[in-house]
This record gives sequence, structure tokens and C-alpha cells, in this order.
Amino acid sequence: MILDIINKKRLGLELSYQELSQAFNGFLNGDVYDYQMSSLLMAICINGMTDDEIFSLTKIFIDSGDVLDFSDIPGIKVDKHSTGGIGDKTTLVIAPIVASCGVPVIKMSGRGLGYTGGTIDKLESIPGYRVDLSDEEIIKQVHDINLVVTGQTADLVPMDKAIYALRDVTATVSSIPLIASSIMSKKIAGGSDKILIDIKVGNGALLTNEEDAKKLSDLMIKIGKVYHKEVRTMISDMNVPLGNRIGNSLEVLEAIDVLKGEEKNNNFVDLCFDLSSEMISMGLNISKEDALQLVNKSIEDQSAYAKFVEMVNYQNGDISKIKVGKNQYQVLAKKSGVLTKLHALELGKLSLALGSGKVYIDDKIDYSVGIYLKKQLGDLVKKGDVLAVLYYNDKLPKIEYNKIFTID
Amino acid sequence: MILDIINKKRLGLELSYQELSQAFNGFLNGDVYDYQMSSLLMAICINGMTDDEIFSLTKIFIDSGDVLDFSDIPGIKVDKHSTGGIGDKTTLVIAPIVASCGVPVIKMSGRGLGYTGGTIDKLESIPGYRVDLSDEEIIKQVHDINLVVTGQTADLVPMDKAIYALRDVTATVSSIPLIASSIMSKKIAGGSDKILIDIKVGNGALLTNEEDAKKLSDLMIKIGKVYHKEVRTMISDMNVPLGNRIGNSLEVLEAIDVLKGEEKNNNFVDLCFDLSSEMISMGLNISKEDALQLVNKSIEDQSAYAKFVEMVNYQNGDISKIKVGKNQYQVLAKKSGVLTKLHALELGKLSLALGSGKVYIDDKIDYSVGIYLKKQLGDLVKKGDVLAVLYYNDKLPKIEYNKIFTID
Repeated sequence: MILDIINKKRLGLELSYQELSQAFNGFLNGDVYDYQMSSLLMAICINGMTDDEIFSLTKIFIDSGDVLDFSDIPGIKVDKHSTGGIGDKTTLVIAPIVASCGVPVIKMSGRGLGYTGGTIDKLESIPGYRVDLSDEEIIKQVHDINLVVTGQTADLVPMDKAIYALRDVTATVSSIPLIASSIMSKKIAGGSDKILIDIKVGNGALLTNEEDAKKLSDLMIKIGKVYHKEVRTMISDMNVPLGNRIGNSLEVLEAIDVLKGEEKNNNFVDLCFDLSSEMISMGLNISKEDALQLVNKSIEDQSAYAKFVEMVNYQNGDISKIKVGKNQYQVLAKKSGVLTKLHALELGKLSLALGSGKVYIDDKIDYSVGIYLKKQLGDLVKKGDVLAVLYYNDKLPKIEYNKIFTID
Repeated sequence: MILDIINKKRLGLELSYQELSQAFNGFLNGDVYDYQMSSLLMAICINGMTDDEIFSLTKIFIDSGDVLDFSDIPGIKVDKHSTGGIGDKTTLVIAPIVASCGVPVIKMSGRGLGYTGGTIDKLESIPGYRVDLSDEEIIKQVHDINLVVTGQTADLVPMDKAIYALRDVTATVSSIPLIASSIMSKKIAGGSDKILIDIKVGNGALLTNEEDAKKLSDLMIKIGKVYHKEVRTMISDMNVPLGNRIGNSLEVLEAIDVLKGEEKNNNFVDLCFDLSSEMISMGLNISKEDALQLVNKSIEDQSAYAKFVEMVNYQNGDISKIKVGKNQYQVLAKKSGVLTKLHALELGKLSLALGSGKVYIDDKIDYSVGIYLKKQLGDLVKKGDVLAVLYYNDKLPKIEYNKIFTID
């Protein structure tokens, strides 16, 4: 009975595979009510889960939908996932780099959550770009051009969608076992051979401390072992936003600049090179140093950029039609000194207020709005310097200057 | 925002009066969804509440409805509450005893919860007995005969009804702070001057260990102090059922036997005498020893029984029409020895299976069914002796003999 199962977890006891299945599959088929599932999820959040429980839950998640099979495609397929953050457009850069270096990339991405934009929303800012490819279309495209970035198919871990929607409105998002099961079930059902996870830590991320990130990392590697999939993880900072642009079309344009080699030497470029090298090292079974040389070459000879354009065209997108907000507002430095704070979460909130994401489920995203940071953390600035440019169409939201910037 | 409030409690932090009010009043008026409230309730269950939080919550509960005022009625009004158990018909006995000794008793009782029957269900097994008295009718009746036992009015702590219904289906019943707020808000809104709480501990009760009972006791006394109401508590055993009958009309008949002095020397009679003495001691400001003498006298001279009959008649009931199940089934001892187990919870389940309570909200109670125990714990029994008689009408459920009885 569901009450006995919830009660057991309330008391901190371990649930069996059967009990977890009864609760979660019961929720999916309507036997368990949402208010019962949210009560169980909160008990899991607070009392945690054992490894065995997490393995069981991941299996239940995977079994709720289709498991994709790309074994016909030659080569080691490497998937990558980021736990998300402000200005995180890494997929747009690393997927073409890795594919251009000979590793097949099949990336099924998600939409924005809270203050963090989703890769799929970003790609949709390219007019015409299709994110709803079928399994057959995905396979054909990888065969043809070695690269696809699309939305998750409806049958990929439907339980995750249902549970995530409930977690989002019941303050049960920040649970390491639930995060691990959610991500790993999708990656395993996604059919790649190896998985690289970029775990973000900081005020602009789901996880705010390094210890939790380490726990999540260990857990995901363990889950990978159960399914005989190599999992590597990287822990990266999310106290400052990634790169210099936030907002859907602005981020696509930034990714293009990085792929063209026109944007260099910032935290975003460094992370993209690091993640790409790791993925190529996994896909080609070479050292990370050798992989980095391939990455550098793919930028220098424009083959990574060419691969990106090839993908966009293949999926019906038209880069030349990307639009940014018709109005611009310059945020000026109120004093001179060193820029010591560039608060990721507050910038995420500002971008959301501009219209770049959804507050309510029915909201429409304005792909053209966003923030272009003109100064990086640690830069010397003079009073009156432009710190950032806001791109907007209609209304300009209130700017919490002191929460975002500090100049010392 | 409700998510911030839930999150705070998830992390074990203290919620302010304003935050608790926003969450609980929001739930009552529909701004907070049931799946959000159940998530918050589970966080409260696991992480507990500080005394200040419990005082705030109790106030929020009380303020959700009417507070009754019986100050026009002379004498110290003493209310009594039991946390409930199998075979607990104490109110039916002690209310008339106490009233017959000169202490005004206004008792608003509840219905059955889980395996434990409610006083109101028991009284409804007396054909005609009204449990829906208005405030005016209650005041008139106490003026006239010093005693009233009726259901809670709809406007008495409506928030408790709403929250309890949710707790019942989300495994968030067993929380000491929530139990304390629930009971004390109703007792304080109920308008009596002093309150006696009978806290049951054992397998057939909400609380299964003495330590929790002690905590609940301390908490209820503290809440009483905030409202300048004297609260006394008693902790009593609920591992074996109270008395020898379980089921609505059977329990009313047992109460009558006790009031007539025809049933003596069992755990139920002892508890009734103990609770009655305590209430009279509180109401007349006399010692418990002196109060016990009054109790004994009220049984001997039949004044307690007369008071019970007076109340039933005043509330339109007819004792002569009480019915018991038309069929009887005898449970026989399978071996000889000493009866060392008479499991309260399992007997509660059997009574429920006979039809004496509700499993689903739409179920109809069969007032006439139940269990008559013919042997007490510790009795010497012979193989073939009648351990219990089941009263039923249509179907006889499966009897889990070994879970209920042990003979060593």
C-alpha cells in the first residue's frame, strides 16, 4: 500500500525495487496521487536513498519508455550532459567540435528550467531549426553528417517528465539521488556508449557546494557501471555566468563566434575546449592532450564551424535570420575599480525578466532578448564604462545593479 | 513564495508566523496546491518544528474558525481528549460520571480514523441520537443537564479538517508537532476552561513509544500555557484493546454495563475511573483521592448511569433500540495455556473488516458488527474455550488468529 511505502521512507528505511516500482509506476498510471508522490519525494529529499534504491529508481525510470539503439552506427558514440547554469551554451560549441573530429554525436537536449536556459530553446532561436526529429531521422542524420542535436523524443523516459514537473513545484528539485536518477536514466535510454557529465556548482546552479557535486559525480559513475557505460565527470564553476552572453539568440551568436575562433580566453571557451577534449578522448580512445590538439585544429581550420552550419542546414535552420532585440540599454559602471562580482543567479533572473525564459508554463519565450556582458570578472573598469548591454523589445525590467555587480 | 517556504523547512530551518500563515491559509483558500502542502507536511514530519513554530501553527489553526464561549455557564468546564485507540469508548463513560459529580461537560467528539472508531460513530449506533447540535443547543443543554456529547461544529477549526484529510492519505499523520497543533487548536477553540489529554501508546495507537508520548504531553501543556488553560495529561497503554468489546453498538452496551457497575476490574474500567477522578479534581479543585470517592459513589448510586440516559434522551436517542449483528461466530482457543497476546491493532483491523469503520470515504458503517472478547490478557484458557465472539450480518472476514492471539 502506498501509505506504507511513504511511511517507510519517512522513517529513513530502505525501499525495495518492488516498493519503488509500485510508487513511481503507480504515479504514472494514476493509482498514486500527486500529493502522495510529492510527500514521498520530500521524504527522499530529506532522508536520501541508498545506492541500491538509486539503481532501482534509475531502472524504473528507464523502463518507463523506449531505449534507443545506435549500435548500427559505427564508432563510439559519446553523449554529454550539463547540470545547467546561466549562459551555458556549451552543447552548441562542443557537439560540432567533437563531430568534426570524427566522433559521432547524438545529443538529445532539454528546455530551460528555472533561471537556466535550455539548449533546445537556444536552437529554436535559429529560424526554421527543427528540434522534433524522429528516431529514424536521428539515425539517418548521424549516418550522413555524424552530428545531431534535437529535443528528447516523447517516449524517452516519460516518467522523468512527469516526476520533474512535480518536483519543480514542490521544492523537491535539489535531491542528489533524484538528480542522478533523472539524468542517468535519460542518458542511458539515449543509447550512447559513453557519457560525459559537466556538473555545475555555484549560485547559478542547482548544486551550490562542491561536496554535493562530488557525491553526484560518484553516484553517476556508479550508475554507469551498472549499465556497462563509461561515465566521466567534470565539476565546473557557476558563480559567474559562462561566457559573455545570456539569452537564446545572443548565446547562439556567441557559440558561432567561438566556433569561428573569434572569441577567445574566457571561462566559456576554456570549458568548451576542456569538455571537447574529454569527449574526443573517450570517443577515439586517445589521450586528452592529443584530443586537445584535434580541438585546436578544428577551430583553426574552421571545420568545427562548418560542421555546425552543416547541422543547422540539415535541420532546416537559417543562421542568417537570427534576430536580437531591437532596443539596447547600456548598464554603466557607477564607480571605478576592479569588477569583483558578476552574480550568475541575478543575471539569470534579469534575463528571465527580459523575457528569455518562462516563469509560467504558458509564457512565450522572446528568443531575441538577453544580456551582453562587456566586462569580465577581475577587469579594471572606469566609472561610466559599459558593463553590459541589455537587448529588449518592449519593456525594460528593473535592474538590480548592486545585486549583480560589485566594483571594489 | 510557497516554494521558498517549503525549501526552508526541507533544510530544517525555522518558519516564521507569516510564512506558516501564508502556507496554511494559502492551502485553505486554494493558492497552495495539495501536492505542495503534502510536501511541506512531510518536511515538517521529518525535520520537526520548534516550539515557536508550533505556537504559530496552533494559532493559525484556531483563527481559521470560530472560538466558542461558554463563560456564561457557571463552574469550571473541563474537556477531555484521547489520542484514540482500539475499543476506546472512555468518553461514553467518563462524561456522564463527571457531569453527575457536578462538573459541566461539553464534549465535541470526532469520527473514526483508520482502525480506531470515533465517539460520534459510537453514539450514532444509538437510534435517533443527534450529533449535530448547534452552538445554541449545546449551551441550552449544558444549562439544563450539565452534559453534552456532540460532533464538532463545521466552523470549529476548519483548517484542521482540511489538513487532517490530506495527512491521512500522505503518511504524515505521525508527527508530534502536527498532532499537538491539531488537538490543542480544537480543544482551545472548544471553549472549555481546563483540558485533560489521554495519550495512548502502543501498537493500536498513533504513537508507538513512550518517549514520543512524553514529548507530545510536554508540548500540549506548553500550548495550554500560552492560552492560560490548565492542561493535564495521562499516558495509557494501547497494546491491548480497551475493555472487552470493539465495534460501535457493542461498545455503547459495554459503556452502559460499566456505568451500571456490572462490568468491573479490567483495563477499561480502571482507565475510566482514573480519567474521571482527574477531571473532577480539575473541575472542583479537589484532590484526586477525594474525586475518586465521588466517582465510586456515582456508580454505586446509579447517578452516572442516570445522567447518561438523561443525555441520550435529551439528544433524541433510544437505548432500547440498539442493535447487534444478527449472526455470531465463536473464535475458539487452538490450545491450552496462558493468553499472552491480544493484539490491539490486529483486532482493530478485524473489526474494520467486519464493517465497523470506513476503509474508503464512501463506505457505510455497520454499527451493529464487532468483536466481544471473552478472555483477557493473562487469562488461563483451555483448548476449545471461546476467546471471542464476532457479531456480523452478511460476510465473515478472514480471521488472522495467529496475529491476534498467542497462547503460551
